[in-house]
Amino acid sequence: MGNKYVYGFNEGSKEMKSLLGGKGSNLAEMTNIGLPVPPGFTITTEACIRFYDEGQKLWPELTQEIYEHLRNVEDTLGKRFSDEENPLLVSVRSGAVFSMPGMMDTILNLGLNDKAVIGLIKSTENERFAYDSYRRFIMMFSDIAMGIPKQRFENLLEKMKEERNVEQDTDLTAADLKILVEQFKQVYKDEKNQDFPQEPLVQLQLAIEAVFSSWNNPRAVIYRRLHDIPSNLGTAVNVQSMVYGNMGDTSGTGVAFTRNPANGENKIYGEFLMNAQGEDVVAGIRTPKPISELEDVMPEVFQQFRDVTKILENHYKDMQDIEFTIEKGKLFMLQTRTGKRTAQAAINVAVDLVNEGIISKDEAMLRIEPNQLNQLLHPTFDAKVLSESQVVAKGLPASPGAASGKVYFHAKDIVEAKSRGERAILVRQETSPEDIEGMVTSQGILTARGGMTSHAAVVARGMGKCCVAGCSDIRVDEELRVIRAGDLTINEGDFISLDGSTGTVYLGEISKVEPELSGHFGEFMSWVDETRRLKVRTNADSPRDSKVAVKFGAEGIGLCRTEHMFFEEARIPAVRRMIVSNNESQRKKALDELLPLQRKDFYEIYQVMESRPVTIRLLDPPLHEFLPNNDKDIEDLAKTMGISFRDLKDTVHSLAEQNPMLGHRGCRLAVTYPEIYRMQTRAIIEAALDYKKIDGVEIMPEIMIPLIGDVEELRFVKKHVLEEIGLVFNERSDSIKYMIGTMIEVPRAAITADEIAVEAEFFSFGTNDLTQMGFGFSRDDSGKFLNEYVERGIFDKSPFEVIDQKGIGKMMEIAVDLGKKTRENIKLGICGEHGGEPSSVEFCHKIGLDYVSCSPFRVPIARLAAAQAVIKERMTIQLDK
Amino acid sequence: MGNKYVYGFNEGSKEMKSLLGGKGSNLAEMTNIGLPVPPGFTITTEACIRFYDEGQKLWPELTQEIYEHLRNVEDTLGKRFSDEENPLLVSVRSGAVFSMPGMMDTILNLGLNDKAVIGLIKSTENERFAYDSYRRFIMMFSDIAMGIPKQRFENLLEKMKEERNVEQDTDLTAADLKILVEQFKQVYKDEKNQDFPQEPLVQLQLAIEAVFSSWNNPRAVIYRRLHDIPSNLGTAVNVQSMVYGNMGDTSGTGVAFTRNPANGENKIYGEFLMNAQGEDVVAGIRTPKPISELEDVMPEVFQQFRDVTKILENHYKDMQDIEFTIEKGKLFMLQTRTGKRTAQAAINVAVDLVNEGIISKDEAMLRIEPNQLNQLLHPTFDAKVLSESQVVAKGLPASPGAASGKVYFHAKDIVEAKSRGERAILVRQETSPEDIEGMVTSQGILTARGGMTSHAAVVARGMGKCCVAGCSDIRVDEELRVIRAGDLTINEGDFISLDGSTGTVYLGEISKVEPELSGHFGEFMSWVDETRRLKVRTNADSPRDSKVAVKFGAEGIGLCRTEHMFFEEARIPAVRRMIVSNNESQRKKALDELLPLQRKDFYEIYQVMESRPVTIRLLDPPLHEFLPNNDKDIEDLAKTMGISFRDLKDTVHSLAEQNPMLGHRGCRLAVTYPEIYRMQTRAIIEAALDYKKIDGVEIMPEIMIPLIGDVEELRFVKKHVLEEIGLVFNERSDSIKYMIGTMIEVPRAAITADEIAVEAEFFSFGTNDLTQMGFGFSRDDSGKFLNEYVERGIFDKSPFEVIDQKGIGKMMEIAVDLGKKTRENIKLGICGEHGGEPSSVEFCHKIGLDYVSCSPFRVPIARLAAAQAVIKERMTIQLDK
Repeated sequence: MGNKYVYGFNEGSKEMKSLLGGKGSNLAEMTNIGLPVPPGFTITTEACIRFYDEGQKLWPELTQEIYEHLRNVEDTLGKRFSDEENPLLVSVRSGAVFSMPGMMDTILNLGLNDKAVIGLIKSTENERFAYDSYRRFIMMFSDIAMGIPKQRFENLLEKMKEERNVEQDTDLTAADLKILVEQFKQVYKDEKNQDFPQEPLVQLQLAIEAVFSSWNNPRAVIYRRLHDIPSNLGTAVNVQSMVYGNMGDTSGTGVAFTRNPANGENKIYGEFLMNAQGEDVVAGIRTPKPISELEDVMPEVFQQFRDVTKILENHYKDMQDIEFTIEKGKLFMLQTRTGKRTAQAAINVAVDLVNEGIISKDEAMLRIEPNQLNQLLHPTFDAKVLSESQVVAKGLPASPGAASGKVYFHAKDIVEAKSRGERAILVRQETSPEDIEGMVTSQGILTARGGMTSHAAVVARGMGKCCVAGCSDIRVDEELRVIRAGDLTINEGDFISLDGSTGTVYLGEISKVEPELSGHFGEFMSWVDETRRLKVRTNADSPRDSKVAVKFGAEGIGLCRTEHMFFEEARIPAVRRMIVSNNESQRKKALDELLPLQRKDFYEIYQVMESRPVTIRLLDPPLHEFLPNNDKDIEDLAKTMGISFRDLKDTVHSLAEQNPMLGHRGCRLAVTYPEIYRMQTRAIIEAALDYKKIDGVEIMPEIMIPLIGDVEELRFVKKHVLEEIGLVFNERSDSIKYMIGTMIEVPRAAITADEIAVEAEFFSFGTNDLTQMGFGFSRDDSGKFLNEYVERGIFDKSPFEVIDQKGIGKMMEIAVDLGKKTRENIKLGICGEHGGEPSSVEFCHKIGLDYVSCSPFRVPIARLAAAQAVIKERMTIQLDK
Repeated sequence: MGNKYVYGFNEGSKEMKSLLGGKGSNLAEMTNIGLPVPPGFTITTEACIRFYDEGQKLWPELTQEIYEHLRNVEDTLGKRFSDEENPLLVSVRSGAVFSMPGMMDTILNLGLNDKAVIGLIKSTENERFAYDSYRRFIMMFSDIAMGIPKQRFENLLEKMKEERNVEQDTDLTAADLKILVEQFKQVYKDEKNQDFPQEPLVQLQLAIEAVFSSWNNPRAVIYRRLHDIPSNLGTAVNVQSMVYGNMGDTSGTGVAFTRNPANGENKIYGEFLMNAQGEDVVAGIRTPKPISELEDVMPEVFQQFRDVTKILENHYKDMQDIEFTIEKGKLFMLQTRTGKRTAQAAINVAVDLVNEGIISKDEAMLRIEPNQLNQLLHPTFDAKVLSESQVVAKGLPASPGAASGKVYFHAKDIVEAKSRGERAILVRQETSPEDIEGMVTSQGILTARGGMTSHAAVVARGMGKCCVAGCSDIRVDEELRVIRAGDLTINEGDFISLDGSTGTVYLGEISKVEPELSGHFGEFMSWVDETRRLKVRTNADSPRDSKVAVKFGAEGIGLCRTEHMFFEEARIPAVRRMIVSNNESQRKKALDELLPLQRKDFYEIYQVMESRPVTIRLLDPPLHEFLPNNDKDIEDLAKTMGISFRDLKDTVHSLAEQNPMLGHRGCRLAVTYPEIYRMQTRAIIEAALDYKKIDGVEIMPEIMIPLIGDVEELRFVKKHVLEEIGLVFNERSDSIKYMIGTMIEVPRAAITADEIAVEAEFFSFGTNDLTQMGFGFSRDDSGKFLNEYVERGIFDKSPFEVIDQKGIGKMMEIAVDLGKKTRENIKLGICGEHGGEPSSVEFCHKIGLDYVSCSPFRVPIARLAAAQAVIKERMTIQLDK
């Protein structure tokens, strides 16, 4: 016996997700817990993988297996393909392991042909429905499975409506639709040079191949890249007997969440349409009704539906996203899956489920993808400005957040606008998968049609992107590139603002304010903080950033870059004078001007951080970064500085480097010009003494010397730093505690960390540079070829985004081990941008760092990732027992 | 009791070199084996070190110890300082641990004053000699210890000779010299505002301080840097009772080698001057006579001298460099040390000593500093051209080699000429330590005065630099910058050529031919080859270089760079067309043009290498290196290529990188353009198949993929390489053996070598890039600050010259261990420039590499270094037993 590639719904379970896909495993699970699911079967992801090995064709053994399962379905229902009395019709749906909404394709009513349509008329006693289904099927099949442009069919439909002088599709008669079926079949024949396939088994085979092929269509590839889904998983295909929501007024279809996916409220949330098929709801073609109204329409069905949602939630222990159909008063469950939700909803649901005793705190914390918190942390509109702003329209609050930007109507224009540095809002009648890149790139999304579960809404929530959907007050003309709302006309390039939490659209740009973090968020984060071992600091070099970070829970500054202070407009002249100095005394004079300014910088940061530790990195970039590099600017600067153009140009020229990344920077500057680090050291220490004296608070500055590769460099620089500190203590007759440490960012430093730890009281891993030098990838230049690396499957992710644990991470581990060997209690942290990336934070936890440091907005993310690291560790330990 | 800082000659031994310096320990050794050495004592190097701690002053306890030893000398000789009957006079000489000829200072006749001169007259019955000594002492002491310009004294001497109308110093009478003494004392008084010190103890103290201080004079610092002598060793000072070679016709002085230092011939080789002091010989002021003539002058003394040389050579088991003085027919040994010699002499002496049963082969091999072989390997003049060249003059063959260059007369002009890219010959009346930098920078050295042991000759031999000394046929006017030789006038900037092996000076530039390696060299190198474990390959990318390397003993090619082939004028257009191609088919067309050329390259190299292994590195540099970068050249190229300036400029622009070292190069190119490596692979394999078919020789090409950082890169590229090889084998219906491996030059590759070894059959350490990335030092930019690192004592040596064993070497060790863990027999080599540097070769031996690869001229050096590594290892093992 060969492999089993096909599973009936009664053969699977939710644990078989990787084989049956999300949808298939859940259909099986629902079948097995006794919920009403139309019978069907699932063709496995393994079949999909083999499909690609077989040259993108189904192979005979598989076809045989499919036929056998089809017989089972026919037997169960007593229906047969092409039966003129009671024909079997099926849906064919993709079902990947990870839900990929809208990215994969679905075909309904498969099995319809000239015979089955007659059977369908008989069995439903509804000729109009039968022909409507037939014409829909021909179009869908032709479009999805055979690549014939949908527009060709839609044009015929529009023409028919014009001829009949009707507005709605539903106003067309059975006779009209029967004509359309013939016209549609003709289109097929014109396009493909053969008749529309009448044999359902052929239809099925082509449809399954289309689903498998769609796994690698460009939109799916982009979606996977965007959501970190491996590309070698494959998709399953679900073949399920049809039930009909469009069989008249006691039929309908809908989608629902067991709780509110926007805010987590414990109340069924969803929409339905009577006399419609499921795709009508998702595609946003008609605007559906709130689920609560179903109670009025069909109270018994609603009651049954409510019971099913409770069963599902208790069974899955999480909020579910459900699709259902009512066929002539009978409820059928077509899908259940864990519901996508906003970060706010995710936290509220998780905390509620803990309080309801359904899950544990650890489970709750694992449920939140740390990056999702991003959504909670970003600014909202300034209420004052908001109250004065003109409201354009109101739509559905599809995805929370606040966005301002210029209006564009096409994804590619958004991308171009972004490349010009503009912030842009994507405005569409409705979005489709082709718009993915524009959605990613936009500040926010506005659609005129579609509900809370439309493509735009679902995708935007997944991305944490602000979205107002179904805004029927506006008309969007994508061709003329204009929005009309009453008398108002908004043209491409005009500013609008969206409030995704209320669904309001405003004219113009609106300033924003920092978010308030309240409600369940505080409770949730208190669990996080009780759980984690890693401290979380921030990278900040201004009082403003420091303040934001402290609000987000930063426990110190892990990286205060001093060069940004040097770039300030008021200071750059002194910095430049320092650089062009010909001798030490000129240089000292310029440095003396900078001293009080740097001291003030540090003092103000200390005031924000109070007694929290502050790690200050001494000057790092090569000096030429502070000088202009085109002749015009050099000439201007030479004039202001009172030196000759020639001299200044020579200085600029002599400082230029072939590979500045590997050039005269970091501690190497201090070997040449120790007086620069001495000035900075003095500013750091004097500011701390001032803070102690004036404010009575003792802070312990951590002086960090960058780019150390050899302990002798550190020894040399440290000697100057210590001497300067000694001078300041003497002058002030006062002292404070301080630490002196180094970045570990040069591979050689990691490898010789035992030697370096003799002189360094702390290590801070500079994983940006460690990645650059460890791989030999210039961050400035590697974007181009790293994309190719990812495309060609050489790398999963750019190592600049996620710590490369096998290589760069291994260097970190070596450095940690060697450092501790020399200095048992050496303080260890990370200040590269990886410090706010969840998987990297987990890695830092594993190798025993004391803290991570990241940008202020990523502090809560890092806190949660740190807690998850502890929980996962506990789980591993338990598994090991 | 405190430290002992002073040792009588009878207290020391040759084993105490680090404490007593080379000269002092050998004087002690000679004293103890019963040779005639004038009594004296040595002030230790430890005293020198303490001298710097004491603020460059002698301290009371040391002075006391010196006085005590002085008393011993006085007692031994029955002479006293300032004695009017029989005064003690001493020499004060520096004596560092490593011989530093001419760099440190010497004072003779110390102790002379107005009383002692009377005693000297009485004891020698030679008034003229006494006053001559006195005036010499005043000048020397004033110059060396007190910094009074020598010229002031020499002017008075010249004036006196003019007044007396005599030519030679020796023509001046005692009365003349007595007057000069008074004039010299007046000069001293004018300059120093005090009388010339009459107290010998004061003279001695000042002289010792001067010697200690001279340890850190700029010339000494440069010399040490040049010769890798640590700067914290300090120098000893030798105080020795004077004997006189200038006491008339039965007195004399000389220097000799126990064998010929130029070719190693077993025959005493040296020079002497009758009625002269030692400095006269060394300084080259009078041209001395060959030592063999001493037999005619004083046969008994010569016989005694010959016996002494035998005793010394047998005692020291090596060729000695000896200074002696004959005082009134009595022989005194003033110094012995291991004689500096040319590489040829070194090898011949070592082989002879083995054959004479004095040393073992291992000892012989350890005696040769591998870098010395450099001298043997460089070209000599083309005999044909030489025979047609005009001989200018003939001098002493002071240091072998052949040099052509423009004439310059001042060290600084040589340095400037070098910086302009010129090759220059330093021409001087005589050289002095001030000329060191010019000597280093020059192609060769020509002096008009001085013998085989003059400053110029000794220093040049040490450097392996060609030198013709004592060329009395020419007159050198350093001020007018002209050489006159008979009717011939050679001006600054004219070309001359020197043959250091014959002492001939030629007019104009003469082309050179490769050296013949014969005689003892072959025997010596056969021992080397029997001893070493490491194989030695060469870095070569042309048949010409390969041929040279094979002659020098290369056992294969360790690095054949393919990019140099791309730069050839005939090919660069196709290379450029390949680069500016917009699509794969254009690119393939350009590559198709390059294929036959590359195939020919490899075929011709195989023919030279016969069955030796050849490692070929696929294209490594970033593509923009092949394109012009200024507008003019871009415009020209655009025209020839028939594309628009704008398009080409855009391409050039798009390929430019911030940090090209870390950019799109090496295997990264092949990820983007696999067809480039495919073409190269095809050329490599087709050439090998051609070679097999046409010449019947099977070569095993080793295909090396550069810049691998992650095994997935290698896997990707290797797949293309293997596919192409498969295609070629099929097309030709033939096959050969080959290997596929990688450079280990990216730190991450070293750290993950276990993974990489799964795909790589060999590793070749690219220590240039590994050093760049491991340290984060751009080789192009770091020159500037690495000098400061060495100056400030942070590094001993640039890690680009000598492998940094603690860091980069540690990465190599990690890679070796990991690589062998995965693939026990993985072939390991090095192809960075360190592969020809002796200490790095030793390191490669220690960590278990299979071979080193270096430039052709360094092959013999690497072979010897590899043998020495084995011998040192044996010694360590024996010590451990």
